[in-house]
Amino acid sequence: MLRTPDDLLDFTCEALARVRDRAPLVQCLTNAVVTNHTANALLALGAAPAMVDVPEEAGPFASVAGGVLINLGTPNAEQRTAMTEAAEAAVAAGTPWVLDPVAVGSLPVRTALAHRLRDLGPTVIRGNASEVIAVSGAGAGGRGVDATDDVEGAADAATALAAATSGVVAVSGPVDLVTDGERVARVANGDVLLTRVTGAGCALGAVMAAFASVDDDRFATTVAATVVYTVAAELATKHGDAPGSFAVAFLDALATVDRSDLTGRARLS
Amino acid sequence: MLRTPDDLLDFTCEALARVRDRAPLVQCLTNAVVTNHTANALLALGAAPAMVDVPEEAGPFASVAGGVLINLGTPNAEQRTAMTEAAEAAVAAGTPWVLDPVAVGSLPVRTALAHRLRDLGPTVIRGNASEVIAVSGAGAGGRGVDATDDVEGAADAATALAAATSGVVAVSGPVDLVTDGERVARVANGDVLLTRVTGAGCALGAVMAAFASVDDDRFATTVAATVVYTVAAELATKHGDAPGSFAVAFLDALATVDRSDLTGRARLS
Amino acid sequence: MLRTPDDLLDFTCEALARVRDRAPLVQCLTNAVVTNHTANALLALGAAPAMVDVPEEAGPFASVAGGVLINLGTPNAEQRTAMTEAAEAAVAAGTPWVLDPVAVGSLPVRTALAHRLRDLGPTVIRGNASEVIAVSGAGAGGRGVDATDDVEGAADAATALAAATSGVVAVSGPVDLVTDGERVARVANGDVLLTRVTGAGCALGAVMAAFASVDDDRFATTVAATVVYTVAAELATKHGDAPGSFAVAFLDALATVDRSDLTGRARLS
Repeated sequence: MLRTPDDLLDFTCEALARVRDRAPLVQCLTNAVVTNHTANALLALGAAPAMVDVPEEAGPFASVAGGVLINLGTPNAEQRTAMTEAAEAAVAAGTPWVLDPVAVGSLPVRTALAHRLRDLGPTVIRGNASEVIAVSGAGAGGRGVDATDDVEGAADAATALAAATSGVVAVSGPVDLVTDGERVARVANGDVLLTRVTGAGCALGAVMAAFASVDDDRFATTVAATVVYTVAAELATKHGDAPGSFAVAFLDALATVDRSDLTGRARLS
Repeated sequence: MLRTPDDLLDFTCEALARVRDRAPLVQCLTNAVVTNHTANALLALGAAPAMVDVPEEAGPFASVAGGVLINLGTPNAEQRTAMTEAAEAAVAAGTPWVLDPVAVGSLPVRTALAHRLRDLGPTVIRGNASEVIAVSGAGAGGRGVDATDDVEGAADAATALAAATSGVVAVSGPVDLVTDGERVARVANGDVLLTRVTGAGCALGAVMAAFASVDDDRFATTVAATVVYTVAAELATKHGDAPGSFAVAFLDALATVDRSDLTGRARLS
Repeated sequence: MLRTPDDLLDFTCEALARVRDRAPLVQCLTNAVVTNHTANALLALGAAPAMVDVPEEAGPFASVAGGVLINLGTPNAEQRTAMTEAAEAAVAAGTPWVLDPVAVGSLPVRTALAHRLRDLGPTVIRGNASEVIAVSGAGAGGRGVDATDDVEGAADAATALAAATSGVVAVSGPVDLVTDGERVARVANGDVLLTRVTGAGCALGAVMAAFASVDDDRFATTVAATVVYTVAAELATKHGDAPGSFAVAFLDALATVDRSDLTGRARLS
């Protein structure tokens, strides 16, 4: 079981190579705001996105996909049906799936759905600190999509949630935290410009689903996805120092980030 | 009450500083085409977008948001319900809200909805000349999303509509016109490339909602939003002279436009 | 009837000039992932996109639009109703319409709809090899949105499908194939980076609808759209060699591609 920063970093490089080699099919049931950026992030990385989110298709597709992302950003009624269908099919088929409980807490429709999906046992739950606290049942959520809690303040909730779901929980913030309830990793990469591009966290959830498809150690794959994503963000700042050009450079960096970038920059603990 | 170009320009600089300082939460119920660009424009500007557009969430959120945008570009049934819910909640809570009646006139579903929403008294109505004429009840609308009338030809309709709704009406075009029924301002900034990027007008509506959250003089905030937006477009042409690169540079410019850009370039009358 | 590569290339240049001159109104009923990119591609080219996809509006609009695109990428229930409405209205009004049967084959909802729409006689059907084979009834489709068959392997299915629908069929791949059941053209332009940007094929369908509005020889207009689009992709690689910057440069190239680019680069046979 991978635990040390060095082991996790070696694994990250290997997992990225596998993603690029296998081009895993990642089914995304995600919000209307970020669907384009998410698909482009997956394509840039080397994965194959498929946004199959209508009922009667979402379930069958989840059975054959490499990984599934369920993101609750704009959950209309038809998509909610498809999300439940996809999650149940993923569980039945053993397909890894990521739940991103966007803005849960005070918003009633998505919060109820998030709790139902949580109880199905997501492979990974990814959110900001307020979302993780809310989905764990320990708090009220943040301000819209923004966290009002900090990452370390969500560490206990994340650990409890990971234990309760027998899954992995990732808390995004200036320093990202990943835990499977026993192991805890922190990734201190990234750039504040990620918060100035919509869907940065949403696309990370999709990338976690891609990585989850290439190895059974989902703590390690989630750490790997986080490292690759946040190191790419750092590389992007060299070519884009404002939100528009950064977003473009970030997609380029996802396509080009390599082992030397990762080993030279990763700040894992 | 601000009237002179100099006063409005001073106010514009102050309002931009407030938006960046307060990061107002702007709820957008908008069309599928532009939701990503709109969120990115708000983030670049320094505001906090939240695309909460499902029934039972849209109303409660409009009660706590800083501003609300309702854009009728692709109004499916569920979104129409959410839009009415959000508008009613915004009115009840005193949240400023912007109505963007995209392509109203001959298209029956959105036109009926636009009239119902108009009668609720939007804080701001923003559209091109044909849309403003159509929503005022004085004409038939344009060709799809394109205006077939010119801005000055819509001036009377805009003034009458502002008076009827006790709100502000903004007419977009080569020279933008803003009126509250008594005061009238014209903004002669911008660039034709804005018409080559989808959702330029739609994102301006969201920016108007952001500015409306920082001051009670919504004539002045709407002028300020228009000046900031169109001056940013001019700055963007220095880095992008074709539609793709212009769109990227425009987001960068929204993030970086400052007082000296505004005072040096604004053409207010 | 245009047959030779030289005649088709002359026609391509003339058709591009007409699109830019007339700015045809192109109605798009398309998937949530690509709607923004599709609208921007049409605007960059010089056409006028209108994403009118709600029932009771989609039909009337299809009667007056210059061309219609129906893309099955994320076909929710309301959009499926609107798509049938738009296709029937297009047929009745003589509006050219393009069907893009994204990921048909194993996915049941879209496959049933694709067959119903096919039977209405689309002016153009555009897809990858697996999609064309599936919609022709000769095979099972690909892996999500990716083709698992190659273009030449779909040539017979394309020819049979064109004959059965009395329309044009375009098969996208490294070398694109266009046929009306009698004539066959191949276009060997483009770049592999098109496969790293989501919606490259989807936007091509919209461009084919724009070109179909400017001449009655829809074999020739479909070839023209393909040449313009894939030559623009080649031009874009000069300014963007990774997915993010390529997508931006591609929109720029659609706006700037000219007769000399086309005559210098087109590889038609």
